[in-house]
Amino acid sequence: MANFKGHALPGSFFFIFGLWWAIKYPLKHAKLRRKDSGAHGVGSTTCLTNFRRIELVEGIVKTAFSFIGMMAEQFVPDGPHMRLYDRDVQAWDHLMNWQHTTMYLFFMLSGLADILTYGTRLGPPALDRLMLSIAVFVEGLLFGYHLHGRASLDVHIHSLLLYVVFGGAAVVFLEVFVPNRPSLELMRSSLALIQGTWFYQIGFVLFPPNGGPEWNLEDHENMTFITMCFCWHIFFNLLLCNVIFSTVTWLMRCHSPGVSHMHLGTLFPASARGNKENGSLLGESDEDE
Amino acid sequence: MANFKGHALPGSFFFIFGLWWAIKYPLKHAKLRRKDSGAHGVGSTTCLTNFRRIELVEGIVKTAFSFIGMMAEQFVPDGPHMRLYDRDVQAWDHLMNWQHTTMYLFFMLSGLADILTYGTRLGPPALDRLMLSIAVFVEGLLFGYHLHGRASLDVHIHSLLLYVVFGGAAVVFLEVFVPNRPSLELMRSSLALIQGTWFYQIGFVLFPPNGGPEWNLEDHENMTFITMCFCWHIFFNLLLCNVIFSTVTWLMRCHSPGVSHMHLGTLFPASARGNKENGSLLGESDEDE
Amino acid sequence: MANFKGHALPGSFFFIFGLWWAIKYPLKHAKLRRKDSGAHGVGSTTCLTNFRRIELVEGIVKTAFSFIGMMAEQFVPDGPHMRLYDRDVQAWDHLMNWQHTTMYLFFMLSGLADILTYGTRLGPPALDRLMLSIAVFVEGLLFGYHLHGRASLDVHIHSLLLYVVFGGAAVVFLEVFVPNRPSLELMRSSLALIQGTWFYQIGFVLFPPNGGPEWNLEDHENMTFITMCFCWHIFFNLLLCNVIFSTVTWLMRCHSPGVSHMHLGTLFPASARGNKENGSLLGESDEDE
Amino acid sequence: MANFKGHALPGSFFFIFGLWWAIKYPLKHAKLRRKDSGAHGVGSTTCLTNFRRIELVEGIVKTAFSFIGMMAEQFVPDGPHMRLYDRDVQAWDHLMNWQHTTMYLFFMLSGLADILTYGTRLGPPALDRLMLSIAVFVEGLLFGYHLHGRASLDVHIHSLLLYVVFGGAAVVFLEVFVPNRPSLELMRSSLALIQGTWFYQIGFVLFPPNGGPEWNLEDHENMTFITMCFCWHIFFNLLLCNVIFSTVTWLMRCHSPGVSHMHLGTLFPASARGNKENGSLLGESDEDE
Repeated sequence: MANFKGHALPGSFFFIFGLWWAIKYPLKHAKLRRKDSGAHGVGSTTCLTNFRRIELVEGIVKTAFSFIGMMAEQFVPDGPHMRLYDRDVQAWDHLMNWQHTTMYLFFMLSGLADILTYGTRLGPPALDRLMLSIAVFVEGLLFGYHLHGRASLDVHIHSLLLYVVFGGAAVVFLEVFVPNRPSLELMRSSLALIQGTWFYQIGFVLFPPNGGPEWNLEDHENMTFITMCFCWHIFFNLLLCNVIFSTVTWLMRCHSPGVSHMHLGTLFPASARGNKENGSLLGESDEDE
Repeated sequence: MANFKGHALPGSFFFIFGLWWAIKYPLKHAKLRRKDSGAHGVGSTTCLTNFRRIELVEGIVKTAFSFIGMMAEQFVPDGPHMRLYDRDVQAWDHLMNWQHTTMYLFFMLSGLADILTYGTRLGPPALDRLMLSIAVFVEGLLFGYHLHGRASLDVHIHSLLLYVVFGGAAVVFLEVFVPNRPSLELMRSSLALIQGTWFYQIGFVLFPPNGGPEWNLEDHENMTFITMCFCWHIFFNLLLCNVIFSTVTWLMRCHSPGVSHMHLGTLFPASARGNKENGSLLGESDEDE
Repeated sequence: MANFKGHALPGSFFFIFGLWWAIKYPLKHAKLRRKDSGAHGVGSTTCLTNFRRIELVEGIVKTAFSFIGMMAEQFVPDGPHMRLYDRDVQAWDHLMNWQHTTMYLFFMLSGLADILTYGTRLGPPALDRLMLSIAVFVEGLLFGYHLHGRASLDVHIHSLLLYVVFGGAAVVFLEVFVPNRPSLELMRSSLALIQGTWFYQIGFVLFPPNGGPEWNLEDHENMTFITMCFCWHIFFNLLLCNVIFSTVTWLMRCHSPGVSHMHLGTLFPASARGNKENGSLLGESDEDE
Repeated sequence: MANFKGHALPGSFFFIFGLWWAIKYPLKHAKLRRKDSGAHGVGSTTCLTNFRRIELVEGIVKTAFSFIGMMAEQFVPDGPHMRLYDRDVQAWDHLMNWQHTTMYLFFMLSGLADILTYGTRLGPPALDRLMLSIAVFVEGLLFGYHLHGRASLDVHIHSLLLYVVFGGAAVVFLEVFVPNRPSLELMRSSLALIQGTWFYQIGFVLFPPNGGPEWNLEDHENMTFITMCFCWHIFFNLLLCNVIFSTVTWLMRCHSPGVSHMHLGTLFPASARGNKENGSLLGESDEDE
């Protein structure tokens, strides 16, 4: 939907997921550290069965969101209502809506992959991340061929989006091979947040709501500003993401029973502790943590 | 051969290989899991000697297919019949057929590498995947320089193929370093399937069989549609590939003797089980499985 | 600041950091080798607590430098003085200074990340390198969109800078996954040095100080020369970096107590020693050292 | 030197190195396998000290070759004789020779790095490969900016060279992290061979020796043919490389004392044997071999 709502909707989806991931991942690692720091037993095992359940729910929500998106694209008043080709005018019908539908379709596939991976044990391992990475890549692919013959600012603002999209696809693809790496999970969360806010930015620039002033879509100064503005989105979302990560880690540390008594180092799994405490900087702390 | 058959032939080759891989790989991993789950002894060893034999046969079939392709390109009525340069008109003769011959030549080399790797023990390890990756890369290279001065839709539809081709080359190259990774094997199979169906799509668009309506090769709407259509090929082939993977895994699990009795977890090799059952999300399940 | 000083300032920052890294890293590894060669105990542990402290100081210095840079860009006589939009002329104000401010902003973020990582234990591991890599990437991004409508030599000389910038971003990103790898640390140091000297080169070419002869910014010969000159910068900085690395290593080896007596091989951590002495070339010495 | 000799000289250098590597690497791995297969003791240790000596000699030869190349570029009759700028005509002097000199300069640096790595123990590990990779990258960089305003076939034939050059740089860079991997060593050797023969091809096309017919440098058919011809170079050099690898491996196996008696499998190091004999396809044979 080429209007403000059409950008606010996916923007909100991505922002919500980014926020959620920024909270989920440090939580997961805090729980794991606590487990490693001796508190074995039923508690810790259940906490991890819970994590599988959480992933499952995430998959279901993702599927639902994508379905909502698809319906919205198809059945808005000016939508194609599932008609692809218009015989009367001998032309394709509402191709842009169809493209957006396709994007949502892949995110639905990724949601289903989550369900297959965490609900049953039938999918190959890491299928969830693989499918997510493909979904994001396809989104980028469609956006890339989406910009033909638009105003230069319009093209530019969307091509900046492609950095985030393909960056996200690459990060998630890396996660297929390097699972449970906080640095990657932080990047994924940030990129989701950036994509979310940037979608809103695009909406504000191309379709100024409540009658804001129009932007001159050919002015080069504006393009320079937008590029810089994009970096500010990166900056503030990175900041937000780091604040959430650190806060959650800090909260978990305070509220974890029996941890207050023990030496800080023991909050880290063996190898990382080796790295940080025994000072063996040769240890691949990042390989393990 | 610039006609429908010329696209249907390689399309079928790729599709058949994609299907075969989608069946072979989950089968292999199911067998390995069963081996790990205690059923050691003659049975499991033979099953893996069988896998070496299967790979060998695959290499032979690949070599045969490529040879057929080369002969077809050279000796069709309008082929070059092994003549490269036409002295009379002082010009190269049927360069496109020669290009296709070259592509098949590299797949033949890859087939021979399979035979060298799995038949004898003389080749360096992973030679088979290295050569396959090079073969696919060369295919992409030739396609890339193949499009000079064609209609825009023709160029576009082939350049979409390049995503699949270079993607495939990259995935197989990764397999040189990360062998037996289900996620990569799933991608390889899917990319082969996509390439297969997309070759057919190209054939249908450029050479509509049994007198279908001609496509307007310069209409931008058509290009947008084709891009989207390409994504649908990705979608359905991914779906197909996942269904096959899950079904085979599921079948193997049901029909594996003595497994029905044991706890599901034991179907996974140690580290993966650690990951999935004991919940140690820190384990690099993907590193091992 | 589009003048010689505006290029000398960042150039000096990068050069100083490059020099510092070229000294710090071999020092770190020498200390670790000594530790591995038996001299365990309080001494070695403190030496590594010191390294954490050094990293912390580095972060603070980085933050300070970036802050100085930002102030300089904003409050030079011809600066924007924090004003982004000029209502009178309805135009953006001093966008280039704002872009430079943004670059410094990200380096400040990276400095803060260092403080978070080495001061507290709250940040995810490898956060420092991740943020540095993003900071350098953003620098490259802004430079890339910074060159619109300039003279060809100006564009060329800046686009050569991009090789260093994106190369640096890639190397630091690799360090997120492969920590403490001397080869990567050597590359990072060299790239910082190259960037430093190249900034000066740009200053000398675009704004010849004390009235040097103007360069013809459209002459293609000049572009060819500049490309070659760029390679010489690479050459001499690589040479410098290697000389420093080797000298530091050599000095540490001479002055390390109790090492003079022992077999050279013991200067290397187990696996590397295995690789070099026992001759097992199969060992991934580089994986560990 | 823009003539046939100027391309034959580097072509020969690269071809000789490719051949040498294709022989050295399988030899090295055969020796290591034999060591692993029980024949421990003085013999095997010396054989590996020899390998260090061989690498050292290789470094010296590389340095020598590069020095010869530099001298040839500088002091040929129509060379710059070390003069960079011609004050009389106010222009750069013989820039192309200077570019080629720069390329050789980096290969000399790489040779010196070999000497530093294998002669002394002062350089960081993997310095030799890092420097080689940089040398090859710089070669590509200079070639890339070397083609301004030439005939299209001239540009095309050189840009095909860039695939080999940057491919080589990437492979050697990978070797920094994944040492002693036969597949990478095979690729490195093949790429060196391809670069060697392709330099000759360029010489033959641009400067047909002993008065061959001139090529039409603007004919698109010729470009198509050259692309295909490039693939044939890849094909034949890959074939050559594989034949050498297999032959050396086979010879070493026959002529290795006490091996003829033992089971074939024992020719492979543990993990690889595990992989190939015990059939545990899960083992990362490639990680170890």
